[in-house]
This record gives sequence, C-alpha cells and structure tokens, in this order.
Amino acid sequence: MPRFKLLIEYDGRPFSGWQRQDNAPSVMGLIEKSLLKFTREETVVFGAGRTDSGVHADGQVAHFDLQRDWHSEKIREALNHFLKDTGVAILDSWKVTDEFDARFSATKRYYRYRICNRRAPLTYELGRAWQYSYPINIDLMQKGADQLIGHHDFTTFRATACQAKSPMRTMEKLTVSREGEWVFLDATARAFLHNQIRSFVGSLVEVGSGRKPVEWITEILQACDRRACGPVCPPDGLYLKKIDYPDAADYVIAEKPWEEHPKA
Amino acid sequence: MPRFKLLIEYDGRPFSGWQRQDNAPSVMGLIEKSLLKFTREETVVFGAGRTDSGVHADGQVAHFDLQRDWHSEKIREALNHFLKDTGVAILDSWKVTDEFDARFSATKRYYRYRICNRRAPLTYELGRAWQYSYPINIDLMQKGADQLIGHHDFTTFRATACQAKSPMRTMEKLTVSREGEWVFLDATARAFLHNQIRSFVGSLVEVGSGRKPVEWITEILQACDRRACGPVCPPDGLYLKKIDYPDAADYVIAEKPWEEHPKA
Repeated sequence: MPRFKLLIEYDGRPFSGWQRQDNAPSVMGLIEKSLLKFTREETVVFGAGRTDSGVHADGQVAHFDLQRDWHSEKIREALNHFLKDTGVAILDSWKVTDEFDARFSATKRYYRYRICNRRAPLTYELGRAWQYSYPINIDLMQKGADQLIGHHDFTTFRATACQAKSPMRTMEKLTVSREGEWVFLDATARAFLHNQIRSFVGSLVEVGSGRKPVEWITEILQACDRRACGPVCPPDGLYLKKIDYPDAADYVIAEKPWEEHPKA
Repeated sequence: MPRFKLLIEYDGRPFSGWQRQDNAPSVMGLIEKSLLKFTREETVVFGAGRTDSGVHADGQVAHFDLQRDWHSEKIREALNHFLKDTGVAILDSWKVTDEFDARFSATKRYYRYRICNRRAPLTYELGRAWQYSYPINIDLMQKGADQLIGHHDFTTFRATACQAKSPMRTMEKLTVSREGEWVFLDATARAFLHNQIRSFVGSLVEVGSGRKPVEWITEILQACDRRACGPVCPPDGLYLKKIDYPDAADYVIAEKPWEEHPKA
C-alpha cells in the first residue's frame, strides 16, 4: 500500500482550519475530496500541524495511503488541478516508506507571525497579517520572548479547549525582528499547544508597546493560569512555515522520472 | 483654498482601476465619496498614476482642494475610517502649496512587477502576483531589459487604447532580480505608456524562458508595431511603488501638532 508525502501551501481564510469537520470547509477535507476525484479512493490525509481557522501555511506536511500505485508527480499535478482557485496548492510530493508519519515523525515545527505595525489599515494584506497601530519596541519584545525559551508549563498560553495531555513544552527559538513597518515573531519547537503562538504574540506586544514591563512575562508564565494571559492576537498573521523530520531523505522512495504521456 | 497631498495604498482587485468611471468602482471615486462623507464637499482627487484594473499600489500619490481648512492628520484618520475594509488606505497626508500637482509635478515613477516562478498555483498570493510555471533565466531577461533602457519610440509596448500624444518615453531603470521562487522587474521612468510594463514583462519572459532570443527585444522595439509585442501579462503582479517630486519638502506647509480632542 503506497504512502505519499505532500508539502502544502494554503490561504487560511476560506477554511475552518486544517482538521476535517462535518459542516465546515477544511483543508484536510478538501484534499481528501480532491484525491477521491481522480483516485476513486477514500483515504485519510494526516497533517503535521492542526492549524486553526484563518491560519496560513506554506510548509504544512501531510501523508496518506492509497491502494493503487501512482507516480508522486502525477499526484501533485492532479491534486493541483482539482484544487485550482481554492486557496490550497501542493508544492511538492514524494513516495515514502510506511515509517513516515507526517505528525508523529516530526522533530521540529516552525511558525512565523507577521505584524504590520502602522497607523493605516491593511489593504492587500488584509487577512494575511495583524495590523497594530501603536509603536512596538522589538528589543523589549525580544526580552519578553527570551523568558519563554526552554522547558516550561505553558498553561497560561494555551486555549482552554486545548486537547494536549500535558501543558509542558520546550520552546527552542523565539526571535523578534523588524523590516520597516513589519514585525515578525519566529517560533520553533518540537510541538506547540493550541493557540500558543497567538497567546505569546498578544502578550509580547503588551510588553513591546510598553503597557506591561518585561518581567510581566515571567509572572504570567509562572502563574500557570489561562486568565493571566494577554489578549490572544488574530489568526491572520500566523503561518506554518516548515516541518523537520529526522533524515527526511531516508523515507523517500526513488521513482523513475515521470512522463505524463509515455511514448508507445 | 487649502490643498492636500495623500500617499495611498490599495488592493487593485475590487476596482476597475484608479480613474473614476460611471458604472464601475474606482479608487479615485471611492476616495472622493469618502471625502464627501465628512467634509460635505465635492472635490476631484487627482492621482499621479492611472493604474489599471487589478493593479495595486503602495506608493500612489494624489492631491485635492477643499474650501474649508482641516488638519492633514484629521483628513488621513477620517478617510481611513470611511475607507475601512474597502482595500484602500491612506498611508500619509500633508497640507501642500498650490504649486503641488500629483500628476504634473512628478519627476519619476517606480513600478514593481512580481512573478511567482513555480509549478504550483498561487494560494494567498492569488491576484497579487503572476504565477509562471516554466523556468525563467533572469540573466537573459536582464539582457533583454537592457535593450529597452533610454529614449525610444515604444509603440510596440503600448496598448492600442493608449491616449498619450507621443509614444516616446525614456526608460531610466529596468532591473530583473530573483529571491527564491520570486522574480521581480523594477521599472523607473518619468512617465509610462498605457500597459507598457505589462507589455515589457510579457515580452521579457518570452526571452527568459528561452522561447525567443535576446535580440528579439530590439527587433520588436524597432518594429514600432503593437502586433510585434509578446503576450501582455496580467495586472495581478503590478504595483505602483513610489512617485518622486522635485524638492518634495518645499511643497509642504507646516502644521501645528494635531490633537483630536484639544483641551478646553
């Protein structure tokens, strides 16, 4: 039973999120429906990150199994054909071994949050960034972020609906940077809790705007209390950028070059 | 009669273009309507560049006159209030002298064209870039662009509907660059003809993709014949980035700091 790996980009706006739901459009459900159209097989597409409604991705990874064998490039091209103008695109595809699991094999997840720090409302970036009108000091924001690095109980920074068994996570990297009116927060960890990055950003902007002192971040972290968290910022600015796997190349099964119309 | 200058950003997708039209939404018409809402004055907003339907801007400049005096910051804030979620935003505003004319005082116009050069269709960049599936060699594209620099008859590269009296224009700069899957063409000139940049890009991609030799650009330029032009590329990737004025600061009239609710 051949297994396939996909690298996926999507616009989070039209979707209720990655995860399939009964009465709402999801990225997972849309890819499954598109696969059904040309493979005639019902299959489950397992994603590495369960992004929320409105959250974007250009580095989501997923896997699925099919009964029949296909060339991985044919899978990509056919999926992109059926996904046209939906806001979802397959950037790359591979045939992989059964050991590969998009979610459980992942060793690192990379997210970026984009803040447009200016007075004027957004135009073509509407829905793709968070516009924040007041000055942000990114040095203060970085000092706040530094207090979140490492292994902690992140109860304060996870949604009450979060289904993870443990609130413990290890933040590897939290970097705040600025390019003109743009402020970015780049976050790396093996795994994140539900709403964790949006809770981080909302709280760190409280510090960057000067409304809260830098030490406040340690205070609310140590409180281990959801009510201590700053305002959760909107999903618009969040992007799932990349997933790491151990020796990703080891999972890949080599294929012959693909010819759409092989010569007779 | 006070005159105001605006720096404007917009998403070109919802509009038939900059220029006011009777039965189609335009950026100019929308700003005029928004001004009317709080000034109660009907005025004409003159823009520096008449962008086409679907063309974006983050550096459009315009001017208009009012009977009553206003603080320029009040103009900006009130306009942004009435423009909310329309895809148009006022980035900055100034009070200027009568000598300032957004269109006729301009000395240089800067445009950027964005090509997403990859196999996969666009998702969140849909309508904001031109996706081109086949490999582009930007060194060849630059060599083609170099032949368009200087003072020429650009009849080949202007729309048949172009209303400019002369097809002569002076291209100051045409630079092709790449960042990963993105290819940019940056164009600078005092003024452009209708559809000139989209005609340039469409023809230069013929060269960059290897379908036409570099010298073909000189051939079609010298033909002075619209029918010789390559395919005109879509408006999606085009952005009006900046307008230069001679000693722009000389036009600006100093104002007292603005207080929305002055103390009694």
